[in-house]
Amino acid sequence: MKPALRLGIAGLGTVGAGVVRIIRRQADLLESRTGRRIEIVAVSARDATRDRGVNLKSYAWETDPVALARRDDIDVYVELMGGENGPAKASIEAALESGKDVVTANKALLAIHGQALAEQAEAAGRVIRFEAAVAGGIPVIKALTEGLAGNRITRVMGVMNGTCNYILTRMESQRKGYNALFEECAQLGYLEADPNLDVGGIDAAHKLALLSAIAFGTRPDFDGIDIEGIQRINLEDITYAADMGYRIKLLGVAQRTGRGLEQRMRPCLVPAESPLGQLEGGTNMVVIEGDAVEQIVLRGPGAGEGPTASAVLGDICDIARGFRLPVFGQPASTLADADSAQSNSPAPYYLRLLLPDRPGALAKVAAALGDAGVSINRMRQTQHESAEAPVVIVTHKTQRAAIDTAIEAMVNSGVLAAEPVALRIEAV
Amino acid sequence: MKPALRLGIAGLGTVGAGVVRIIRRQADLLESRTGRRIEIVAVSARDATRDRGVNLKSYAWETDPVALARRDDIDVYVELMGGENGPAKASIEAALESGKDVVTANKALLAIHGQALAEQAEAAGRVIRFEAAVAGGIPVIKALTEGLAGNRITRVMGVMNGTCNYILTRMESQRKGYNALFEECAQLGYLEADPNLDVGGIDAAHKLALLSAIAFGTRPDFDGIDIEGIQRINLEDITYAADMGYRIKLLGVAQRTGRGLEQRMRPCLVPAESPLGQLEGGTNMVVIEGDAVEQIVLRGPGAGEGPTASAVLGDICDIARGFRLPVFGQPASTLADADSAQSNSPAPYYLRLLLPDRPGALAKVAAALGDAGVSINRMRQTQHESAEAPVVIVTHKTQRAAIDTAIEAMVNSGVLAAEPVALRIEAV
Repeated sequence: MKPALRLGIAGLGTVGAGVVRIIRRQADLLESRTGRRIEIVAVSARDATRDRGVNLKSYAWETDPVALARRDDIDVYVELMGGENGPAKASIEAALESGKDVVTANKALLAIHGQALAEQAEAAGRVIRFEAAVAGGIPVIKALTEGLAGNRITRVMGVMNGTCNYILTRMESQRKGYNALFEECAQLGYLEADPNLDVGGIDAAHKLALLSAIAFGTRPDFDGIDIEGIQRINLEDITYAADMGYRIKLLGVAQRTGRGLEQRMRPCLVPAESPLGQLEGGTNMVVIEGDAVEQIVLRGPGAGEGPTASAVLGDICDIARGFRLPVFGQPASTLADADSAQSNSPAPYYLRLLLPDRPGALAKVAAALGDAGVSINRMRQTQHESAEAPVVIVTHKTQRAAIDTAIEAMVNSGVLAAEPVALRIEAV
Repeated sequence: MKPALRLGIAGLGTVGAGVVRIIRRQADLLESRTGRRIEIVAVSARDATRDRGVNLKSYAWETDPVALARRDDIDVYVELMGGENGPAKASIEAALESGKDVVTANKALLAIHGQALAEQAEAAGRVIRFEAAVAGGIPVIKALTEGLAGNRITRVMGVMNGTCNYILTRMESQRKGYNALFEECAQLGYLEADPNLDVGGIDAAHKLALLSAIAFGTRPDFDGIDIEGIQRINLEDITYAADMGYRIKLLGVAQRTGRGLEQRMRPCLVPAESPLGQLEGGTNMVVIEGDAVEQIVLRGPGAGEGPTASAVLGDICDIARGFRLPVFGQPASTLADADSAQSNSPAPYYLRLLLPDRPGALAKVAAALGDAGVSINRMRQTQHESAEAPVVIVTHKTQRAAIDTAIEAMVNSGVLAAEPVALRIEAV
């Protein structure tokens, strides 16, 4: 029998408490699967007095996560505090310095500092595992890094922020506006402390940066991602999209093109009948395309105590079993620059414009599109009682740059009564 | 740099040739991911002269796979011949005896002889990996054994025979009968040499036996699976099911109950709107439910050169990376008896009966159901021109044993003009 694997866990919020609960409840099962006892030695959290519904008495308590990470009596440091800097970063660095393996759910930290941390870990011969950082309970990091290691990955896509998908699907099913649903999410506790991380697409983009790095063997490049939030999607957009057989999703896409790596996290239209289109509520979905495997779709809960703790435990079990691999699936020193390209591969676009109801307005719009080389596939102006006319246009395949040029021309000509919405129609 | 990982590959059909192609095409990528060169040393197949579209000249050729498996210059024996006995079994045993790790796509062999082979492998300190044996390109063995290792698994379900799903979905979309589609599959090469392996549910049941073993820590128990093929599903069934909001799928289900492990591979009704209900054509899907993760759904191609070769390569890369674990996720000696229970957990059932068009026939059916304690939720007798009346009944929740009792009584009373169809309505 191998010696026990000794853990120090920093952060005892929902996920941390969930991890403790599983390890207490399933000690024998975990031992039969990994061949080792998995033991919690010490924990750390801000408030030592709070009742977390789990017995912590047998664990040493550290007020400072860095001190926890440096303890001689732990093998693995489990970081579940979150935050892209501060104690999370300092404690992970300390853990690596003092010879510990690391398990974390911290997408922001790894999206920003992942390259440096991977280099530090690999120089020290340690591993950093982060299954819980991407798409909650779905073992997508494992699928991509290990299960599909024989593939040259061509595209990765994902709906990876449950709150945004909850809002977008409820807008359609309940005919509620964005603001009402945002309030509902706030009350349900579905929003991060800074809600822009959710609805602004930042959280999902952190996850995409990590998937891209593994998929394409590139350094994580969060700054290279085109990000747009869902705040400006309204009920009209939802309805128009549905009428045409589409749904609107905050979809992350990373793909290789001849000009470099395109990464975007933007609301877009996907066919209502596709697996992505059918995804309801807070569930996450990741689609992986490779030259051998064709297409794999993974679906599951993207957040919550159980699912996220399940992912953390998967990483802990791998370490207990002795599985060791580079942080992003190949040595950090061999990761290429992302060489990020503007997301410019051609696609049809959906445009919603609000025009003053006066002669010549539509002509100006048509001219702006034509001058930018964008041709119109269909257009609809609905009956309206206000002084402004909502116009929806679906273009033929074009590039984002051409759409942006056309919109700029419309703005300059003064023909737009409100900021326009332009959404890519994604082939999924 | 670690030494190269040297492979011997037996079986150069579609999958074997695909594996060779990937290793030749992606040698550098595989090396960057695993830290080792992956080299093919020797191959074996029945016909040395056939053109497989891939250059085999640089590999040693063995006519006998057992001789290949025993070669001193290979580290991993890759068995892609198939068959539950004969050369596949003999060569894998020889490989383990002579200290080789084994990668195989052979579901029949492992479903029947998996326990003995696992014991042999673990006694010799070798691994047997079989990702390609279940659900083609979907990395489901890995997800279940590793990614979800922190979960007590409660249920595993899967549509894992693409040919059956192709037939069932085409019956609905093209209004073609079973026999016509069976012929179409034969012509397209979608059927095994013994088609009963496909349409009789055997192939899919082999896969279910492997998933069950990993999910529940039990010895593979193929004989404990209730198996029923799709041969008797007709267009009326498809139509009735669709009218009620269901689709018919050949679905494997393994679940723990108070009375033991239930394993069934039978056609059943699932909600048309569920991920399983929406699965079209030859695609496979596996649903895994665990106490922490809730529900994970994995979808992808279940067969074909690229997807199956992708799964084989995933296993090879794991071995190259030094990942080692017991064949079924925990030591073979610790696997419990499956303690298989008849699949008797309660569910509503769909019954299609053909009755002689004479007074009292329906009364006999109703009496048989009532006597067996089965209550009727809805019933429909459609207009008909023949002398026999098709009747469809949906029951309230009941047990399979009660349905079987009722059917036996109907048969004994002579009221049935044809063999009845009884399909469970599965909660998915």
